[in-house]
Amino acid sequence: MRGVKTWAVLKGAARLYTNERMVERAGGRFNLSDLAPIEDGAIVYSLRKVRGKEIPGEILWSGETKKIPKKFLKTRKQRDLKQKACLIPGLIDAHTHLVFAGDRSDEFIARMGGVTYDELAKKGGGIQASVRATRAVTESELFRIAKRRVTVIAALGVRGIEMKSGYGLDRATEFKQLRVMKRIEETFPEFYFRRTYMGAHAVPPGSSADAWINEICTEILPEIKARDLAHDVDIFVDDGYFDVSHATKLAEAAQRLGLGFRMHADELGNTGAAEAAAKNSALSADHLLKISRAGIAALAGSITVATLLPGTAYFLREPHAPARDLLDAGVRVAIASDFNPGSCPSFDLPMILQMAAVNYRMNSAELLASVTLSAAQAMGMKDTLGALIPGRRALFTEINALSFEGWLYTLGRWS
Amino acid sequence: MRGVKTWAVLKGAARLYTNERMVERAGGRFNLSDLAPIEDGAIVYSLRKVRGKEIPGEILWSGETKKIPKKFLKTRKQRDLKQKACLIPGLIDAHTHLVFAGDRSDEFIARMGGVTYDELAKKGGGIQASVRATRAVTESELFRIAKRRVTVIAALGVRGIEMKSGYGLDRATEFKQLRVMKRIEETFPEFYFRRTYMGAHAVPPGSSADAWINEICTEILPEIKARDLAHDVDIFVDDGYFDVSHATKLAEAAQRLGLGFRMHADELGNTGAAEAAAKNSALSADHLLKISRAGIAALAGSITVATLLPGTAYFLREPHAPARDLLDAGVRVAIASDFNPGSCPSFDLPMILQMAAVNYRMNSAELLASVTLSAAQAMGMKDTLGALIPGRRALFTEINALSFEGWLYTLGRWS
Repeated sequence: MRGVKTWAVLKGAARLYTNERMVERAGGRFNLSDLAPIEDGAIVYSLRKVRGKEIPGEILWSGETKKIPKKFLKTRKQRDLKQKACLIPGLIDAHTHLVFAGDRSDEFIARMGGVTYDELAKKGGGIQASVRATRAVTESELFRIAKRRVTVIAALGVRGIEMKSGYGLDRATEFKQLRVMKRIEETFPEFYFRRTYMGAHAVPPGSSADAWINEICTEILPEIKARDLAHDVDIFVDDGYFDVSHATKLAEAAQRLGLGFRMHADELGNTGAAEAAAKNSALSADHLLKISRAGIAALAGSITVATLLPGTAYFLREPHAPARDLLDAGVRVAIASDFNPGSCPSFDLPMILQMAAVNYRMNSAELLASVTLSAAQAMGMKDTLGALIPGRRALFTEINALSFEGWLYTLGRWS
Repeated sequence: MRGVKTWAVLKGAARLYTNERMVERAGGRFNLSDLAPIEDGAIVYSLRKVRGKEIPGEILWSGETKKIPKKFLKTRKQRDLKQKACLIPGLIDAHTHLVFAGDRSDEFIARMGGVTYDELAKKGGGIQASVRATRAVTESELFRIAKRRVTVIAALGVRGIEMKSGYGLDRATEFKQLRVMKRIEETFPEFYFRRTYMGAHAVPPGSSADAWINEICTEILPEIKARDLAHDVDIFVDDGYFDVSHATKLAEAAQRLGLGFRMHADELGNTGAAEAAAKNSALSADHLLKISRAGIAALAGSITVATLLPGTAYFLREPHAPARDLLDAGVRVAIASDFNPGSCPSFDLPMILQMAAVNYRMNSAELLASVTLSAAQAMGMKDTLGALIPGRRALFTEINALSFEGWLYTLGRWS
């Protein structure tokens, strides 16, 4: 209450999942008992005003409804879920390519019919099609597209979104994407956004990998830092794209400027990318469909989160990432959508979490952590987001079910 | 217009998919050119009053918006989609177990973690858990549950639903399920429902397969017919359940009474069930994960539709049914949800159709037919539903995309 002027009470959750026990545990593996839901739970959170709009500030208290301290009940801002829904920490999608123009439904149908990505790329499709569309669109139209997406994503329960540039490749379009992200962040102050610069998504036509990484490190990153355009930097390390030496160079340049570093790693082939992510203290190594035993061991000895993207493996008809092996080795595992116009045309994180439930052999504590606490860590926000305990930001999701498992099972549709 | 007093005009569809060409074609395989969407399309349909509510009757006309005959424009009941959405024939889900009580989220989580169905069944789980819950609930509560589900399903664009009993096994509970279905049908006259009696879902405790099929044929079916409780009869033919001789006996008894016949066939193992379905002129043979070459050939020479259920294969982590082989052999293929509390806890037909798009190598004409025209045939309604041409029932679905492919790709979420 120190200095808090207004607050709200949300009570009567059939179950409240705070993640408190998981905050205290090291490693990636969680036990079912770590879930420890509170029956008939409540949260109390401060309110802050942003441009006249009152939005949740931070958690002041959480626990059983009947134990809400009296002082907090002195507010008219109370809502009662009447035990018809549960509360979980706000869902966090730690890997999206949210800000792009154009769609590639024609390629989707062609690929489903058996045409390969390489065949499409040779005809000017693939990432180049999205680059053309994103370059062609005005900044205000790109903002309008992204804003509409965030509105739909929020309705799915997502409260934190990482978003990457990378469909411009040239400096002007990448900066246009990043400015749109900043405007999205200002437009939705009730959510948390993480902005990532990913000029190293592919080698721009007419350049080389070496020259492009050099330009990014010496010219582009300092400007991004000076204008506060991005929190983090990402790179696609894989056969035919960038290699681990590029990643190391980029990580050093980013970290020198105080920017976070993350990597697309070992998706198409194994290039030792997971090991490079660990060595360079990346916030996150993403995809990992082809990670080796050595890569798993390297991540286990690092601060790097393994961010797995089951929707992408699904749409590419690839075998799934070795989630259980990663968890058993002690690696933190996040699950994200990878929403993008090519390999994962869905931003439905609940559906993608259900894909993880079907394919990853994770228990429900691990599944919940993967889209809350561990996703927060992959975002570089492990002490701020991901748990409903005093001092954390009040990002929470109401789920239309009587338990987290019941929600996963029905996707909240018929419970 | 012959005798039609009121009608409505729905115009300005970015594309109108009537299925007209597919109506005219034999076999299961369709070409992309069969889609033949009409740009800026419109439909005109009659209106009928059911208990004071005005609902769509039948299609009077379909074509380009600019060609709507003048006489039809003499109505104030006009809506313009302004080319922001498409129209397709109403989606039909030709296989659901809609009317049941209880959920099995605990089993879902256990199964995802590696526990087998047999282990669950030995502890009283599996279908027996749903039977206990469905027996225990009152008829009005069961209706309330089913009604809520239909409301959500309709919002997904589904306009026709087949629903089966089979979670009672005893006569009283099966009849309770069927009465609830009749009430659902009366409550939602704007949709089409197909009611199926599936007492032969499993052998009731204390009975034998022979005795139960005998009781169904001699005692239960005549009563169902007399009370108009069901349109069709279904049976689960598989290892450890019923065999093809039971199916043949049931088919003969059903058809003698003028009831349709359908089968759960070759799901867990191959027992020659597809061949039996073809021989007995079943409306539909469903699942077919383990169908043989001989089974495919038998279906190709029959009127029976192969109703494939990719959601179930997905949740059971089973290989998918051989959709392409079936189509190439000339079999009509429908895609349905199999919504049920055990092996497919989803009734999201668009999502399940997308699963088919990812896994079945069907082209978009075949995909559209599978949830409209071919699904109508599996429901026994091939000349009444499934196409937006004059004389057919006016069941249609607005899709939030500029093409059918675009909708499949994005599930209508970000187009």
